[in-house]
Amino acid sequence: MFSQRFEELVQALRVLPSVGPKSAQRMALHLVMKNREGAVFLAQALNEAASYIHACQVCNSLTEHDICEICASHERDEQVLCVVESPADVMAIEHSGSFKGKYHVLGGHLSPLDGIGPDEIGIPALVERLSQNIIQEVIIATNATVEGQATAHYLLESCKHLSLRMTRIAQGVPQGGELEYVDSHTLSQAVHNRMQLK
Amino acid sequence: MFSQRFEELVQALRVLPSVGPKSAQRMALHLVMKNREGAVFLAQALNEAASYIHACQVCNSLTEHDICEICASHERDEQVLCVVESPADVMAIEHSGSFKGKYHVLGGHLSPLDGIGPDEIGIPALVERLSQNIIQEVIIATNATVEGQATAHYLLESCKHLSLRMTRIAQGVPQGGELEYVDSHTLSQAVHNRMQLK
Repeated sequence: MFSQRFEELVQALRVLPSVGPKSAQRMALHLVMKNREGAVFLAQALNEAASYIHACQVCNSLTEHDICEICASHERDEQVLCVVESPADVMAIEHSGSFKGKYHVLGGHLSPLDGIGPDEIGIPALVERLSQNIIQEVIIATNATVEGQATAHYLLESCKHLSLRMTRIAQGVPQGGELEYVDSHTLSQAVHNRMQLK
Repeated sequence: MFSQRFEELVQALRVLPSVGPKSAQRMALHLVMKNREGAVFLAQALNEAASYIHACQVCNSLTEHDICEICASHERDEQVLCVVESPADVMAIEHSGSFKGKYHVLGGHLSPLDGIGPDEIGIPALVERLSQNIIQEVIIATNATVEGQATAHYLLESCKHLSLRMTRIAQGVPQGGELEYVDSHTLSQAVHNRMQLK
């Protein structure tokens, strides 16, 4: 309401995920009233990110170079490949510090109704990569959703002819989870996939 | 973690109010992965807003011109002035459609501990404006917070010597408010400021 450009800023802020009209207005007011330097700084960061960040040629994660840091690293195990849906998953697993191999980012999951088949998420290219006999184990770390499970299953089938160890990240009760509050599907999985202790 | 510029974008997004590290990361990934055009569009809107939007010379609200639309309008009552703390309050009152006069934006409230006194929020300039005998009524619409009340009180005192009608927006139970859930301070105010019906 103050001006054309203010309205445009409010509209533009709505490209951010989970920012509705009210939040966008509050953000716009905050920037215009209290942090113009921050606004200019953000504008520059947005432009640079949009220009320089792209997919890694090897793993399809994000990088500013041809090949991302993880793919270029000689300190990581080249024989273990973790297949995930998105770069956000790479971040999450790296943050957990539990994996020292390489990654492959599918860039999504199978979703036939949306027209996303194996080609769209680069399954053939991944199978090609796995055929080169460098990788010994594939950890399938797609989401534990219906689509993620279907994608994992399809990938497993696609690699049947290769002599690879293929694993799936464990599914069960999350750390700190109280059984009383865990959903029944997770609980039934946790019982089904119970681990032998002795 | 993907690259320098990605980290910079995550940091830059934190200038937005109530955006923490997790949200900023999610926003950055969303923009880089799914909406680069949106990112560039947002960058442009930010730059333009930062360059062209400034305070109205008359009311201190936001505008791209010397004088804002409301101040420049001949269709609004020049005799009634609504004093608010911020441009966001102008938006809220305009949105309610309940006021057809002019505004004055203080740009804050009295807060002696933060070094914000009458000069910092332009009270002398406002009293000067009120002395010109155009305005007949001042509606004090500062927030119903402790600071807003103190600011309202100070303004009232500052205008004692002027022959003006001064009013304060009503305080009481909000529309749809169930008494059971209204805080006791509001309720005691609502009883104290009860309106005569007959």
